[in-house]
Amino acid sequence: MLDPMLVEKIIDNALIEDVGMIDLTSELAVPAEARADFAINTRQEIVVAGIDIAAAVFRRRVPDCVFEKKVQDGQTIAKGTLMARVTGPARGLLTAERTALNLLQHMSAIATVTAAYVAKIKGTKATLIDTRKTTPGLRALEKHAVMLGGGRNHRLDLAGGVMIKDNHISVCGSIAAAVKRVKAAVPVLTKVEVECDRVDQVREALAAGADMLLLDNMTLEMLRESVAIVGGRIPLEASGGVNFETIRPIAETGVDFISVGRITQSAPSVDIGLDATLSV
Amino acid sequence: MLDPMLVEKIIDNALIEDVGMIDLTSELAVPAEARADFAINTRQEIVVAGIDIAAAVFRRRVPDCVFEKKVQDGQTIAKGTLMARVTGPARGLLTAERTALNLLQHMSAIATVTAAYVAKIKGTKATLIDTRKTTPGLRALEKHAVMLGGGRNHRLDLAGGVMIKDNHISVCGSIAAAVKRVKAAVPVLTKVEVECDRVDQVREALAAGADMLLLDNMTLEMLRESVAIVGGRIPLEASGGVNFETIRPIAETGVDFISVGRITQSAPSVDIGLDATLSV
Amino acid sequence: MLDPMLVEKIIDNALIEDVGMIDLTSELAVPAEARADFAINTRQEIVVAGIDIAAAVFRRRVPDCVFEKKVQDGQTIAKGTLMARVTGPARGLLTAERTALNLLQHMSAIATVTAAYVAKIKGTKATLIDTRKTTPGLRALEKHAVMLGGGRNHRLDLAGGVMIKDNHISVCGSIAAAVKRVKAAVPVLTKVEVECDRVDQVREALAAGADMLLLDNMTLEMLRESVAIVGGRIPLEASGGVNFETIRPIAETGVDFISVGRITQSAPSVDIGLDATLSV
Amino acid sequence: MLDPMLVEKIIDNALIEDVGMIDLTSELAVPAEARADFAINTRQEIVVAGIDIAAAVFRRRVPDCVFEKKVQDGQTIAKGTLMARVTGPARGLLTAERTALNLLQHMSAIATVTAAYVAKIKGTKATLIDTRKTTPGLRALEKHAVMLGGGRNHRLDLAGGVMIKDNHISVCGSIAAAVKRVKAAVPVLTKVEVECDRVDQVREALAAGADMLLLDNMTLEMLRESVAIVGGRIPLEASGGVNFETIRPIAETGVDFISVGRITQSAPSVDIGLDATLSV
Amino acid sequence: MLDPMLVEKIIDNALIEDVGMIDLTSELAVPAEARADFAINTRQEIVVAGIDIAAAVFRRRVPDCVFEKKVQDGQTIAKGTLMARVTGPARGLLTAERTALNLLQHMSAIATVTAAYVAKIKGTKATLIDTRKTTPGLRALEKHAVMLGGGRNHRLDLAGGVMIKDNHISVCGSIAAAVKRVKAAVPVLTKVEVECDRVDQVREALAAGADMLLLDNMTLEMLRESVAIVGGRIPLEASGGVNFETIRPIAETGVDFISVGRITQSAPSVDIGLDATLSV
Amino acid sequence: MLDPMLVEKIIDNALIEDVGMIDLTSELAVPAEARADFAINTRQEIVVAGIDIAAAVFRRRVPDCVFEKKVQDGQTIAKGTLMARVTGPARGLLTAERTALNLLQHMSAIATVTAAYVAKIKGTKATLIDTRKTTPGLRALEKHAVMLGGGRNHRLDLAGGVMIKDNHISVCGSIAAAVKRVKAAVPVLTKVEVECDRVDQVREALAAGADMLLLDNMTLEMLRESVAIVGGRIPLEASGGVNFETIRPIAETGVDFISVGRITQSAPSVDIGLDATLSV
Repeated sequence: MLDPMLVEKIIDNALIEDVGMIDLTSELAVPAEARADFAINTRQEIVVAGIDIAAAVFRRRVPDCVFEKKVQDGQTIAKGTLMARVTGPARGLLTAERTALNLLQHMSAIATVTAAYVAKIKGTKATLIDTRKTTPGLRALEKHAVMLGGGRNHRLDLAGGVMIKDNHISVCGSIAAAVKRVKAAVPVLTKVEVECDRVDQVREALAAGADMLLLDNMTLEMLRESVAIVGGRIPLEASGGVNFETIRPIAETGVDFISVGRITQSAPSVDIGLDATLSV
Repeated sequence: MLDPMLVEKIIDNALIEDVGMIDLTSELAVPAEARADFAINTRQEIVVAGIDIAAAVFRRRVPDCVFEKKVQDGQTIAKGTLMARVTGPARGLLTAERTALNLLQHMSAIATVTAAYVAKIKGTKATLIDTRKTTPGLRALEKHAVMLGGGRNHRLDLAGGVMIKDNHISVCGSIAAAVKRVKAAVPVLTKVEVECDRVDQVREALAAGADMLLLDNMTLEMLRESVAIVGGRIPLEASGGVNFETIRPIAETGVDFISVGRITQSAPSVDIGLDATLSV
Repeated sequence: MLDPMLVEKIIDNALIEDVGMIDLTSELAVPAEARADFAINTRQEIVVAGIDIAAAVFRRRVPDCVFEKKVQDGQTIAKGTLMARVTGPARGLLTAERTALNLLQHMSAIATVTAAYVAKIKGTKATLIDTRKTTPGLRALEKHAVMLGGGRNHRLDLAGGVMIKDNHISVCGSIAAAVKRVKAAVPVLTKVEVECDRVDQVREALAAGADMLLLDNMTLEMLRESVAIVGGRIPLEASGGVNFETIRPIAETGVDFISVGRITQSAPSVDIGLDATLSV
Repeated sequence: MLDPMLVEKIIDNALIEDVGMIDLTSELAVPAEARADFAINTRQEIVVAGIDIAAAVFRRRVPDCVFEKKVQDGQTIAKGTLMARVTGPARGLLTAERTALNLLQHMSAIATVTAAYVAKIKGTKATLIDTRKTTPGLRALEKHAVMLGGGRNHRLDLAGGVMIKDNHISVCGSIAAAVKRVKAAVPVLTKVEVECDRVDQVREALAAGADMLLLDNMTLEMLRESVAIVGGRIPLEASGGVNFETIRPIAETGVDFISVGRITQSAPSVDIGLDATLSV
Repeated sequence: MLDPMLVEKIIDNALIEDVGMIDLTSELAVPAEARADFAINTRQEIVVAGIDIAAAVFRRRVPDCVFEKKVQDGQTIAKGTLMARVTGPARGLLTAERTALNLLQHMSAIATVTAAYVAKIKGTKATLIDTRKTTPGLRALEKHAVMLGGGRNHRLDLAGGVMIKDNHISVCGSIAAAVKRVKAAVPVLTKVEVECDRVDQVREALAAGADMLLLDNMTLEMLRESVAIVGGRIPLEASGGVNFETIRPIAETGVDFISVGRITQSAPSVDIGLDATLSV
Repeated sequence: MLDPMLVEKIIDNALIEDVGMIDLTSELAVPAEARADFAINTRQEIVVAGIDIAAAVFRRRVPDCVFEKKVQDGQTIAKGTLMARVTGPARGLLTAERTALNLLQHMSAIATVTAAYVAKIKGTKATLIDTRKTTPGLRALEKHAVMLGGGRNHRLDLAGGVMIKDNHISVCGSIAAAVKRVKAAVPVLTKVEVECDRVDQVREALAAGADMLLLDNMTLEMLRESVAIVGGRIPLEASGGVNFETIRPIAETGVDFISVGRITQSAPSVDIGLDATLSV
C-alpha cells in the first residue's frame, strides 16, 4: 500500500541529499572492483516496516545488486533476527547504506510503537488511527508504517476528508450551518467529520448529518455519554492526551477510533545494524 | 545558517504533500473573506528552532500575512511563552498551519534534546556533534537545529568529509595505505577521519596523517589512552553507546567531540500549540 | 477551490510548452518599450470558468501588468460581454495570450456544458457529478470548472474514494467479502462505493455496509426499484449512456447523483476572443 | 514522431495526478497476486492515435506487463475492433487503466476529426494544418495526433516560426518594416509568415520577402485573388471560420494550407472501452 | 531575447550547484547585518553579454539588493569600465557573486569572440552564424550572446530546423527523395537545409526544393561555383575549417552565412573582476 | 568519481535542451528501421575525459544500443585514435550524437589543458588544483575532468570548505577573530583556509589556527618567504596570474598547491569527430 512512483521520488531525494556532489569515501577508499556483502540485523524486537523500501534504495543505486529479504513488512521479529542480505559492487552499496537504514529504522520505529499502542486496546472495539502530525516529505511512508503496526489511517491529506472544528463552526454560525455548507459541495465520496468538545455538540452534529465525530479532550464520562447518544449510527473518534496509560480506559468507553499524534511524531528510534564485509 | 533556496524547496514539498489536490475544509467551511489570528505557544520549556521556517511556510501560502515573531531561534523559552502571532486571510493560513507546526515542532525537538546533552558535558572540553542519522529530506533543517541547541555538525553529506572505516582499511591493506590513497585525491579543503576500534589503530592512523579520529565503542580507559597518545595534535571524536548517563564520563576523558545519532533520529516531540480565532 | 501552488505548476508547464526556447515573434517584431491593451470578450453565451487562471497566466509572465476582471467565475454571461482588460508591456503579454485563452476557453467550455446538463435536471433531487475521464494534467482545473457549472465532484483521484466493481467482487468472492476487506483498511474519512449492475446486487451491497452505490447502465425501471429498496439510507449514483435526452428521466427515478464523463471529456469549445492594441 | 523523454514526463505527471497518494481500491480490493487481462476495443470507427502511449502508460506502472498491440497508430479501424490486450499483475494495471484510456481517447478523437476534415478536401491541393489552440500540457501528443489523422503541423511552439500580425505591423510602421526587422534577426532555418486581412497586404507582404502568408477571414473571392497574385512563389494559408461546410470551397480557391483550431480544441470524444478480467 | 522563465531555471540550478547545502563562509565569517558594496569592472575590452543575467542572479538570492547597471548588453566597453554596482546584505551577495560572474564572463567571452569574427567579414554579404556545438544546459544564453556579438542563430534546437546530411540521403536513396519525404511532413514554418559536399549536389538539392544549403568543407573555388549556380534563389551556408585567417576569403565567395562552432565551444575567457567592500 | 544520479540529471537536461519538442530531421529523414554505426575518433592528441558520459548519453536515448569503449577516461591518446563504436537504431543515436560529443569534447578539453599545466610542474612538490570558476550546471563533470588530467579539486561547492578573504577579516576585526569565529561553528570535517596578500598575514593566519593558506598574487620572493615561515605545518596554495610561463617558477617556491581558473573556464576545444554510417 505504497505508490511506487511516489517511493521513487522519496528515495531519489534522500540519496541526493545524503550524497551531495559525490560520496568521497567510497570513491577514494574503495577499489572500483570491490564487492560488498551486507547483513542487516535488528538489535531489538521490532515490527518490520520498510524492508522493501530499503531494497529499493539499494537497487536504485546498484541496479544489479542482490537483496535477499529475510523478513516481511508487518512481521514482529526478535532481537538478533537477520532482516536481509545485500551483495553487489561495494562502492554503490556503501553509498546507499545510510539512506536505506535511515528509512528502515524510521518506518520500523513507527510500526513498533503503533503495535505497542494497538496491544493496549486489544479486545475493545476501538481502532488506533493516525493524524496529520507526520514528518514533512515522508507522510506516505509513515502512514504505511502505521498500517503495518496494526493501526489505520485517518485521512491521507487535506483533500482526503473534511474536519469541521470550532472555528469553522463560529464563522459559519452553527454546526448545522457548517455541515450543510460543506456537504453541499464536498466530493461525494468524502466524509465530513465534526469536532465536538461538549456533549451537546454531539447531538447537534449528529442531527446535522455529520459522517463522523471527533470527541476532543473529553473526559471518560463525556465519551461514554457521547457513545450512548450516537448509538452506533456514525463512528466516533477520541483524541487528546492519549498515552500508554490513558488509551485503554478511553477505548473501553466504546469509541470506534482513537487518534494518536505521537506514533508518527515521536516514535523512539529502533536499533537496526548493518554489518559489512568487503572483498576485492 | 540555512540556505533559503533549499528551504523553499522543502516547504513547497511539504505543503503539496499535506494539501493534496485541495484543502477541502478551508475551501468549504471558511468564507473567502474570513480573517484568522493565530497564537503559537509552547506548552513546555524548549529551545526554539524553526521559527523562521514556520514564518516562511505561512508566507509561502499567504504572501501578505503578518507573522510577528516573539522569540528567536536558539532561545530557551519557558512553558506558556507566546512564540508568534500570525494574521491574514483565514483559508490560506489554516491550510499552512499543520505544515508550519510540524516543522517547528520537529526542529525544536531536536534543538531541545541537543541542549540537554550539551548541558551534561558543560565544563568539559568536549563538543556534541551530530551524524548522518537524519530524517531523509530534512537533513539541512535537522543539522541547523543541532547548531541551535548548542551542538556542532560533523559533515553535511558524503561530499563533506571522508570517514575511513575498518572495511576500507581491510580492502586497502592497512590504515596507512587507505589514508595515503584518499589524501592523494580528496578535495584539498576536506578532512580525512579514520575510525579506530583499538588503541594501536590510533597510533597507526596518527602516523598515517589522518586529520581526525573516530574512537568507536571504546571503553573510558581506551579513550583516555587515545587522548594521551594523540596529545592534541588532531581532534578526537568518541561515538557508540552514548546516552544521558554515559556522556559525561566520556567527555571527561578529554576527547574533543562526541557524536550522538539519537539527537536527530529520536528526539521526543515537543508540545507547541496553535490557537486560532477566525472572524468574518 | 483551486490550490494556488498546483495552479502555479500548471501555468508554468503550459507557458514553457507554448514558448519553447523563445517567443521569436514578440522579441523580434515588437519593440521592447511597446505597451499592449487587450480586451477579452466572449462571442457566445457562456458560464465563466478560469478568469482567475487567465489573470494568473498574464501575471506569471508580466508581474506588473494590470488585469481588470469584469466577470466572475461561475457567472453566466451574454455573447459580447467584456470579460477582462489587460494592460502592460506588450512582449510579455503577447507571449502569454494564447496560454491564457487556451485555459480560459477549456474551463469555460466545461462549465458551460455542465450548466446545460444541470438545467435539464432542475427541480429533481439529482445532482450532476463528474468522473475521472479528465484531460491528463488538468484535472484540478476541470473539476473546478464542473463546480462552477453547478455540478459536483465525485472523487478527486484514486486516493479520494473507493469504487468496488464487478471484477473486485469476483476476485474477493462476493460483495460482502469485498466491502468487508476494504472497510477494514480504508482511511476512515473515505467512503466506499459499490458498482451494481443488477437489483439484487443493490440489496447485497446495502447489507454489506457500502457507503454509496453506483447503478451502472440500469434501465429506468431498475433505477426506480433500486431507489425504493435503498429508501434514502445511502446515496445512489446513476451512470452509463447519459446524454441530454436521457438525463431527465434518469433524474426523475429519484437517484441522488448522475455522473457524466463527457462534460470533461468532450465539452465543445467556446468562442472567446482577444482584441489587442499595441502602442509605442 | 514523438520524443520519448517528453512522453515519459507527460505519463508520469498524468499517473501521479490520477493516483494521488495511493490507489486505494486496487490496494484494498485486489489481492497482491491477482492477474489481470484487459481487452481494449473501440466502440466506433476511429483513426487510431496513441496506442503506443497507452502501452507506455501500462509499462511505466507495470514494467513486466505484456501489451499486445493489435492496431497501428494512423490506422482507420471499424467499430468493435480489438485494439490491444494487456496482461500482468492486476493492481498496477488497474491503476494505470484510466490514464491510458484518457490519453488514447483524447488522441484518437483528434486524429479522427482531423481525418474527417482531410477527407473533405481530398483532391484539392490544400493541406489541413493545426494551430497553437491546444490543450496545455499535451501539445506534442495533440500535434502528433493531427499528423496521424492526415494533417500537418503549423509550428510546434513560439520558437518554431514567426507570425507577423496587424499589431506588429502597426508598431513597426509597415509590413515591409516588420518583415525586414524580423528577417535580420530570426534563426536562419525559421520561416516568417505574415497575416493578411486584405488583398493589398498580400502584395506588400510578398514584396517584403515573407516566407508564407496567412489569409485571415478572407472571402473566397479574396482568397482566389490572393492565390493569383502570389502565383505559387510562397505558400498561402487560409484561416478563420473553417468548418465542415466551408472547408471544401476554401480549399478549391487554390490555397496551400487551411488551419483549423477546433481539431485540437474541440474534438468530440471517441468511445473506446476496456474489458477487464481478473484472476487469482 | 531570452525567455525569463528559462533564465530563472538556469540561475536556480547554477546557484544550487555552487552552494551545496550551505555557503559556510558567508554564514560563519560575515555578520548577519553586514552590508556589501560590489563594483564589477572589466579588465579588458569586451562586448558585454549577460549583464541582466548577472543582475538576475543577485536578485534571486537577495531580492532587495540594488543592482545599478552601468553598461548594456551588446555594448563594446574598454578595459577598466565599471559594469555595475551591487549593494545589499553581504551574506547573500557574497553567495551569489561567483555564479553571477561565471555567467557574465562566459557570455561576454562568446559575444567578444563573435564580434571579432564578425569584424573580419565586415563589408561582405556574409553573416556569421552559430551551431549546436554549445555547452549543455546553457544553449539559450550562448545563442543570445552570439546575437549580442553581432552574429545570428542557425537553429535553436533539433525542432527548429531540418538538416539533411549525406547519411540521410543515402538511406532515402537520393537528395530528391530525402527532401520530398521531409517537406511532406515538416511543420510548415520550418526550413529544410541540405548539406552538400560537392557541386553537383548543389544543383540536385536546389532542384529538389531545399530551402537552404550547407556547403561543407568546400574549397573557395567550389564555394564560388555554388554561389553562381544558386544565383540567390536560396541562402547558402559555408562551414568547416573556419578560423580568423580563412573566414574573410570564404565570405568573399558570396555565401550568405558562415557557421563557426568555436565561438560557442571555445571562446577564451574574458577577465571581469569584482571588488567587494563590506561594512557592518 | 562522478555520482550516477547527478550524471543522469545533467544528461536529461542536455538532451531535452538539444531536442526541443522533437528531432525533426531524424524522424522525417530516417526510416524507423534504419540502423546506425558510429565511429568516434579524436583528431588530435588528447587526455580522454567523458567517454563514460558519452556512453550514458547514447544509452539514455537508445537503451539497447551497443557502445564499445576503446579508450579509458584519463588515458592520453594519439591523433586518429578510435575512441568508441556505437551501433543501434539510427534515429535515437542520431538524436543523441551532438549532446554526447558536446560533453565528451568539453570534458576532454579540460583534462587535456589540465595535463599540460601538470606537465609544467612535474618534479616539483606542487599540485595543480581547480577553482569555482566552472561552467554553471557542469561543475561535477568539470571537476572530474580536472582529476583525469592529473589535477586535484580545491572544494566542490560553498559547503565544501571555508575561504576567509580580506573582506571577512575586515568585518570580523582581524584574522584571528575571523578564524576563531569560523572554527567554532564549521562542520568538523571541513578545513578553513585564509587568503593572505602579505607575508605578515601568513604569520597571523598560521597562529590563528588556519588549516591552509591561499597566497594570492604574491611575488616569487613573497611565496618563498611564506613557505619558509610555515615550514610545512599547513599546506599553502598559490593563486593569481598563473599561466604556462609563470607556473613553473611558482611551483619551485615550494608551495603545495597552485590554483588555475582557466583550466575550467577557458580550455580550448578539442577536435573529436564522429563518422556515421546508416543502413536500412
